[in-house]
Amino acid sequence: MTRLRISEIFGPTIQGEGSVIGVPTVFVRAGGCDYRCSWCDSLHAVDSRYRHEWQPMTAEEIMGKVTELSGGQPLTISLSGGNPAIQDFGPLIRLGKTQGYSFAMETQGSVARDWFCELAPLILSPKPPSSGETVDWDAFDACIAAAVETESVMKIVIFDEDDYTWAREVAAGYPSLPLYLQPGNHTPPGPDSDAIDLPGIMTRYEWLIERALADRWFTPRILPQLHVLVWGNKRGV
Amino acid sequence: MTRLRISEIFGPTIQGEGSVIGVPTVFVRAGGCDYRCSWCDSLHAVDSRYRHEWQPMTAEEIMGKVTELSGGQPLTISLSGGNPAIQDFGPLIRLGKTQGYSFAMETQGSVARDWFCELAPLILSPKPPSSGETVDWDAFDACIAAAVETESVMKIVIFDEDDYTWAREVAAGYPSLPLYLQPGNHTPPGPDSDAIDLPGIMTRYEWLIERALADRWFTPRILPQLHVLVWGNKRGV
Repeated sequence: MTRLRISEIFGPTIQGEGSVIGVPTVFVRAGGCDYRCSWCDSLHAVDSRYRHEWQPMTAEEIMGKVTELSGGQPLTISLSGGNPAIQDFGPLIRLGKTQGYSFAMETQGSVARDWFCELAPLILSPKPPSSGETVDWDAFDACIAAAVETESVMKIVIFDEDDYTWAREVAAGYPSLPLYLQPGNHTPPGPDSDAIDLPGIMTRYEWLIERALADRWFTPRILPQLHVLVWGNKRGV
Repeated sequence: MTRLRISEIFGPTIQGEGSVIGVPTVFVRAGGCDYRCSWCDSLHAVDSRYRHEWQPMTAEEIMGKVTELSGGQPLTISLSGGNPAIQDFGPLIRLGKTQGYSFAMETQGSVARDWFCELAPLILSPKPPSSGETVDWDAFDACIAAAVETESVMKIVIFDEDDYTWAREVAAGYPSLPLYLQPGNHTPPGPDSDAIDLPGIMTRYEWLIERALADRWFTPRILPQLHVLVWGNKRGV
């Protein structure tokens, strides 16, 4: 039986960012990632030094936990990571949908899967220069193609002027993908600290709004991470 | 020539709340309202003691100002108030659409207009008990009927437990309207003060999330007022 490496399952809470902002959800966070972004805010699901915390779980076991948390009341399940696309979530999605649940997923778009068309929505988040990673655009385009029958959106996290310039160029290449811009959390949770710079985060959000509007760039939605504003770097909410 | 009473036109900024949260927009705020909510956060567009500040403007003059602000780059125009539905915004909407602009509008749903079908979206915000107002549900249903060919959503502001209970009952009667819940700003701008209680607003947002999730009420999106978090009660942003 196929098992998935799961870092954590928690909720119900609200989705704090992107196109499903504010939607009640249970998070299923996959362990493991093919990227190692410099400012990663989920290292506990990325860095292999945490892999002893990742549980191998079957689709049935995952849905059992989700159902326990939701009281059996169907809702949107948010697949997150790490990069959930490096594992096969197809059987979980098919099982959950038979029980009335729907699935949203965020991935950087480095690995395409045929089950992307089962998602609502697929959130593609290509990583900007400040991440230290380099986007494979052929793989990214394969992700879009795999999700062609469902709703896909693009979310770009922006930390600085270089990221902003990059986002404008990327967006120009994908005019039909609804776009979300999000200021980065420059104080992500670390091994020794959950301290967070909320005033700084709000200042960066305001900067991003002003930067885009000054360019008369009116197509993206510009949204913060609500969970960070409400709960800081606390995990499990 | 028909003129509209306009309280203010400002932007571009982002829409801070509801279904178009994060969308770049110019606000056109109508002067005048058929309600007088106890906690109104836009009294300068409601209380007739401010009517000397409201400018009579033609549709052409309004689009001229919007175009000046947007640099001629089409975007979403947010019609707000007061209650914009007590005036005839049909000619403005038709003029703006020929120039590539789209229109979102929020109203309490007390006055139906045939031009509601031109909006994208129409945001109906019936006022809960804490407002001191009483909803005319026949008028509200007429608003939904008038907008039948476009996207309508419902947004309910919640200040307390009574409002929450009321929102649950109202939502049950409109299962097909996408629903947004929003914590009220208990420190709205006053004649003598723009002071705001941000920690209290965040606490109320967290309460609302926990309240709905504890009831396993997973259908509404639960969103704060982003503009209040970023700019407090400052006007013109």
